[in-house]
Amino acid sequence: MGEKIFGFHAIEESLKQAPAGSTLYLCRGMGGHTSALERQAMLTGKVAVKKIASVEMDRMAPDCDHRGALLDLGGARTNTSRAKALTVKEFCQGLGEDDNTIVLVLDELTDPQNLGAILRSCDQFSVGLVIIPERRSVQVNETVIKVSSGAAQYVPISVVTNINRELEYLKANGFWVYGADMEGKVIHKTVFPKKTVLVMGSEGKGMNKLTQQLCDMLVSIPMTGHIDSLNVSVATGILLYEVRRQQATATL
Amino acid sequence: MGEKIFGFHAIEESLKQAPAGSTLYLCRGMGGHTSALERQAMLTGKVAVKKIASVEMDRMAPDCDHRGALLDLGGARTNTSRAKALTVKEFCQGLGEDDNTIVLVLDELTDPQNLGAILRSCDQFSVGLVIIPERRSVQVNETVIKVSSGAAQYVPISVVTNINRELEYLKANGFWVYGADMEGKVIHKTVFPKKTVLVMGSEGKGMNKLTQQLCDMLVSIPMTGHIDSLNVSVATGILLYEVRRQQATATL
Repeated sequence: MGEKIFGFHAIEESLKQAPAGSTLYLCRGMGGHTSALERQAMLTGKVAVKKIASVEMDRMAPDCDHRGALLDLGGARTNTSRAKALTVKEFCQGLGEDDNTIVLVLDELTDPQNLGAILRSCDQFSVGLVIIPERRSVQVNETVIKVSSGAAQYVPISVVTNINRELEYLKANGFWVYGADMEGKVIHKTVFPKKTVLVMGSEGKGMNKLTQQLCDMLVSIPMTGHIDSLNVSVATGILLYEVRRQQATATL
Repeated sequence: MGEKIFGFHAIEESLKQAPAGSTLYLCRGMGGHTSALERQAMLTGKVAVKKIASVEMDRMAPDCDHRGALLDLGGARTNTSRAKALTVKEFCQGLGEDDNTIVLVLDELTDPQNLGAILRSCDQFSVGLVIIPERRSVQVNETVIKVSSGAAQYVPISVVTNINRELEYLKANGFWVYGADMEGKVIHKTVFPKKTVLVMGSEGKGMNKLTQQLCDMLVSIPMTGHIDSLNVSVATGILLYEVRRQQATATL
């Protein structure tokens, strides 16, 4: 079997670009949602549909909450091949001088729920590139794709060996780097430039020291609570929203 | 056993208000995080600490990722008793004329991860009241408290039989009701008043028709993605941020 996609929305999205040789597995007697997927798969003309028993699907996807549907993309594709892979250099070469661009750097996130929700937000706010370190970080796996409702495949992602080196490269290419930190300047009083890099620290321990030092500025979401921070996917969503809000207002 | 709290941050927060008769269970030989909890429990002077074997804790909390620590609050308290319970009427009676107030209505959310993250955001943005329907909705259970990092206990929550009746009551008491909907007016072009009610629809099917009709206005987060929406906890965070941003700017 090749890469497996599960979750109704993730399958729905993946079917739009599924390669020939893919197979949609459906549990017998499910109806509703799954028959909509079946129709969609037939229409592609290149995805086979197989009805199997529920226990058989449990065996194929042992730790998944598959809900009666599973898309096998076939071949020997790896997990991350689903995402649009890109080097930071390639990304910079493709940029226009005047584009409103956001690059998001995720410094050692560990929770697939968070990464999935963040990629969904990145799709919505047209983030140009997401940078993830190859070590000590959750990667774009099946859970992430499911949680992202399939958005993961639309977001350009660069998996890098050294975040700090990439930050320096981005700075040399006209980007300004903003790190999320509780001690930072309030975001709605910060003016974000056309080429903005946002750096989010990990769920438990925040940003690495060296990475933090590379930031041009630290910024914070104004908060008044008892607990010391927001969920990282919520915080990322708010930051992306604020940068895009400012850019939209500036071009009115 | 009484209500159980797990997750390091949730336990840390709960210990601050744990009633006499509570017991902190720790797995033997864990160190680090758990010894910090042990110290904190001792300092309260009313929480007993018991070291047990890991298998024993697995038995006490069969479906939990307990990570070696569990706080038993003792007594016959129910789950929702942890949250500050309040009726909508009581809440309105306690309001000042000039307060910047946000009420958040969650229309049949089903995912505890989402509710937990939302309550954490509500704590950060000082939401005055969260309204949850008693049926067809996830309630404030142990997973929600854990995901909220303990914030759940600081947020006033009203569990109601009929959301629409409460919306009408709030409108009669000077509130304006804004429903989140993709077809709505862009939020940064909307002026939110001092007394704002935000209504969020459920993950799958959005807002109920009747509830939507009760809204004074529908509002949307400007988006440009391939997938049709943001994660509901991210969307809620952005809406809360935007209302508070406007209120902060208005009072400068």
